[in-house]
Amino acid sequence: MHTIMVVPIHTTETSETPDMTMAISTAANTITEQLTAAGRAIEHDSFAIIDAEVGQHDYTDEQWPLVRRMIHASADFEFNGLTAFHPDAIRAGLAAVQKGGTPIVADVEMICVGLSAPRLRHFGMRTQHYISDPEVIELARAEATTRAVQAMRKAQRLGRLDGAIVGIGNAPTALIEVIRLIREEGARPALVIGMPVGFVSAAESKALLMTLTDTPWVAIKGRKGGSTLVVASMHALLGLAEAAQQSTA
Amino acid sequence: MHTIMVVPIHTTETSETPDMTMAISTAANTITEQLTAAGRAIEHDSFAIIDAEVGQHDYTDEQWPLVRRMIHASADFEFNGLTAFHPDAIRAGLAAVQKGGTPIVADVEMICVGLSAPRLRHFGMRTQHYISDPEVIELARAEATTRAVQAMRKAQRLGRLDGAIVGIGNAPTALIEVIRLIREEGARPALVIGMPVGFVSAAESKALLMTLTDTPWVAIKGRKGGSTLVVASMHALLGLAEAAQQSTA
Repeated sequence: MHTIMVVPIHTTETSETPDMTMAISTAANTITEQLTAAGRAIEHDSFAIIDAEVGQHDYTDEQWPLVRRMIHASADFEFNGLTAFHPDAIRAGLAAVQKGGTPIVADVEMICVGLSAPRLRHFGMRTQHYISDPEVIELARAEATTRAVQAMRKAQRLGRLDGAIVGIGNAPTALIEVIRLIREEGARPALVIGMPVGFVSAAESKALLMTLTDTPWVAIKGRKGGSTLVVASMHALLGLAEAAQQSTA
Repeated sequence: MHTIMVVPIHTTETSETPDMTMAISTAANTITEQLTAAGRAIEHDSFAIIDAEVGQHDYTDEQWPLVRRMIHASADFEFNGLTAFHPDAIRAGLAAVQKGGTPIVADVEMICVGLSAPRLRHFGMRTQHYISDPEVIELARAEATTRAVQAMRKAQRLGRLDGAIVGIGNAPTALIEVIRLIREEGARPALVIGMPVGFVSAAESKALLMTLTDTPWVAIKGRKGGSTLVVASMHALLGLAEAAQQSTA
């Protein structure tokens, strides 16, 4: 189950090996979202600071890059602890990325544009969202539900959830609907990144996600979340896939 | 200086007056980003929970809607306290919105798409970002700076900073450059929303912003920030402008 060779990103990002990091970053120039040396240096230093301040943690070498990048995107160290992983989440997420052409279905457009287009292109991935779809808005009004719910139903009707990485950063109602579609209508996403934020149903929606055993997930316990955190965890997953690719190249 | 009539949004959002809130929300249907009754009900309940949990705070009636909405977007109550306002920030921000046609210059596209298009349209506002501009990328590489710095320089070259609301949610280097452009090159934005996040220069960049006296700003003290927080504070500002408009209609 866990035989994929992964070179943990942070082994190339300790403060002892800045030159090596820069060399690797330059080699990966086309698939990193940091397109400049200055941008890469800032990212490198940030990760070193986070590692130093966190010290010991309870995540695996493959899980930690996601959590660290979430802390990087928020400066909120509570994500060391609040972030939870289905035991098969990283393997399933990596397999979905490495397979090529895997769609990312998001609840909001912020996630789609936040993801690095060159990095997605490298793996033939594309993003999709339906929150602003006129049919979705019309159905939400007609059925007195939210646009987020109807957007997930539309993704399912179009067959876009199966095999996809689903990223929810905003609407608890979207996540609850994805879980219902998995349980009752046979939707089979490869991975659900469940990070809706808020005060009405957000914590409950993620608690529900964490009860799923057959569908892998990454989630944030409690109220916190947001589209920037979904983007951060996806970028870390893409980074793991790139590192695995380079180690076998 | 402070003669603009503002009906604080939260007077229509206490739990005692749900019917009134719904009526007002429906009346404002074309300019709210919650397009459905279900979406509006969730937002209403969320704000009531935040108000109840926060209790007393040190913000004015005009500042609080911005802070509350930032808490709503992050579930992080630290923004009650970390958020700081130039004394003229709300008046200047409202005037910029109400003037019509004011550009919003953002450091990242996530801010542009996160903002509600109908709400911006209502005030004739448009969003602009230059982070993915080919010339910006080329200059950043050539001059060994970040894309974020070059993006702000390009905005200044094009005369887009003067009178604009500038929103920085990601790159400290973008904010530092905006401050330099204000101090050294006469850039005159109407309001700077400075909320870059991170571990390298983010806190310092915002501390620098908070020393400006002639240019109004809203900032988050310390490391925290992010594009979702810029979007939240802009939406709250748009909400104040809509409320003021309705009270004089």
